[in-house]
Amino acid sequence: MSSSYGRYNSQSYAPSAPELPPPSNHTPPSNSYTQTSPPSSNYNNYPSYGYPPPSSYVSSSSGYSNFPPGTNPDVIRSFQMVDRDRSGFIDDTELQQALSSSFHNFNLRTIRLLIFLFKHPNESLRIGPKEFTELWSCLGHWRGIFERYDKDRSGKIDPLELRDALYGIGYAVPASVLQLLLSKYSDGSSRRVELGFDSFVECGMIIKGLTDKFKVKDRRYSGSATLSYDEFMSMVIPFLVSYD
Amino acid sequence: MSSSYGRYNSQSYAPSAPELPPPSNHTPPSNSYTQTSPPSSNYNNYPSYGYPPPSSYVSSSSGYSNFPPGTNPDVIRSFQMVDRDRSGFIDDTELQQALSSSFHNFNLRTIRLLIFLFKHPNESLRIGPKEFTELWSCLGHWRGIFERYDKDRSGKIDPLELRDALYGIGYAVPASVLQLLLSKYSDGSSRRVELGFDSFVECGMIIKGLTDKFKVKDRRYSGSATLSYDEFMSMVIPFLVSYD
Repeated sequence: MSSSYGRYNSQSYAPSAPELPPPSNHTPPSNSYTQTSPPSSNYNNYPSYGYPPPSSYVSSSSGYSNFPPGTNPDVIRSFQMVDRDRSGFIDDTELQQALSSSFHNFNLRTIRLLIFLFKHPNESLRIGPKEFTELWSCLGHWRGIFERYDKDRSGKIDPLELRDALYGIGYAVPASVLQLLLSKYSDGSSRRVELGFDSFVECGMIIKGLTDKFKVKDRRYSGSATLSYDEFMSMVIPFLVSYD
Repeated sequence: MSSSYGRYNSQSYAPSAPELPPPSNHTPPSNSYTQTSPPSSNYNNYPSYGYPPPSSYVSSSSGYSNFPPGTNPDVIRSFQMVDRDRSGFIDDTELQQALSSSFHNFNLRTIRLLIFLFKHPNESLRIGPKEFTELWSCLGHWRGIFERYDKDRSGKIDPLELRDALYGIGYAVPASVLQLLLSKYSDGSSRRVELGFDSFVECGMIIKGLTDKFKVKDRRYSGSATLSYDEFMSMVIPFLVSYD
């Protein structure tokens, strides 16, 4: 299972990215990550993570010529396998199928979130080869991080490991925010929440999506932004519209 | 059908609320509502609308004694009918059932949004008699507004009528924001979107929920607010967590 995404893990994904923090030595204070983050950014310790590498290839409106040069054949094969009409775009159920063999059989809610976050802004809820390749790389990188923090290889990580893993993909998430997010995965019992790879991806993508939007309004990385009512509503509503 | 909620419409819901704008004479500019709103608030023209009236009764943790004095027997009956174990709380499927005869057979996504917005902050996703009564009143008020703008009695309103109807319940929503929201109900065709009462309630509740949160950070009603990253994330994530 791991062989097909192993080539897309953190080593190959972002060669210019800084070193990851050591998984066990890094123990930020429980109430906030701000003390361990660089002063220039208190919510994203490694801004280069989680973003697709700059693309240098020519893009056109559709077709397989859109795959970045040097794209691993597995990626192209996975895309072609589900894009049966050769339209050059895949929708939610096709993406679900394309990711199921190499990554995970994500639920459709997570799949729609992935499409929403990776699709071209002008495009409807579907992605082409370029976005698929970026998504594949991102998931491969995140899978590497997940496995790194899943020390007992149980396929699950606990909330503290989640916090460290999110830190590893570049997001310094306050403990209070993480607690809100984790309530989604609680079954109401007092049992400790544990997250599989799918929930980890969902959590991570929610954090990534909202943080990226906020950062656009916080150009100086001061950790706060002034938003008009219209801006606030326009930032948040697409999330609610796409993610259900 | 209308007889059971007719007594809870705008007349009885908010006796201190200002007069509604006339449905047809009111034609705000298409790009923004700000010019027709009072300068003190450019996103909520009638801040007293949409909020439950102050409660003067003693509340306890559960039980039917929690219904506000003078509550219409229909409301109490609807609650009791679904709260079979007499726990004093009803969950999503029970609320769906309780609202189906007097209002609409809302889908569970809308029902969960209603619970999220009306429940006590410390409570899990369930509501008691007090919150149920407030929700019932609010829906009755919104139903009255919906019917007022559904001039041809088709059971549907179009985007312009939606804008006016949202204005009628107190929310001056920019056209661009409304367009984002309406994309949720578009089937991808070029046909004009029309909303039934259920989608109207969903739209209205999303607007209400986000606007109310934003207003807490915009105490002077200036139309803009400075948010820290933590505040922003904490405002938005509960929406994403509850509403899926």
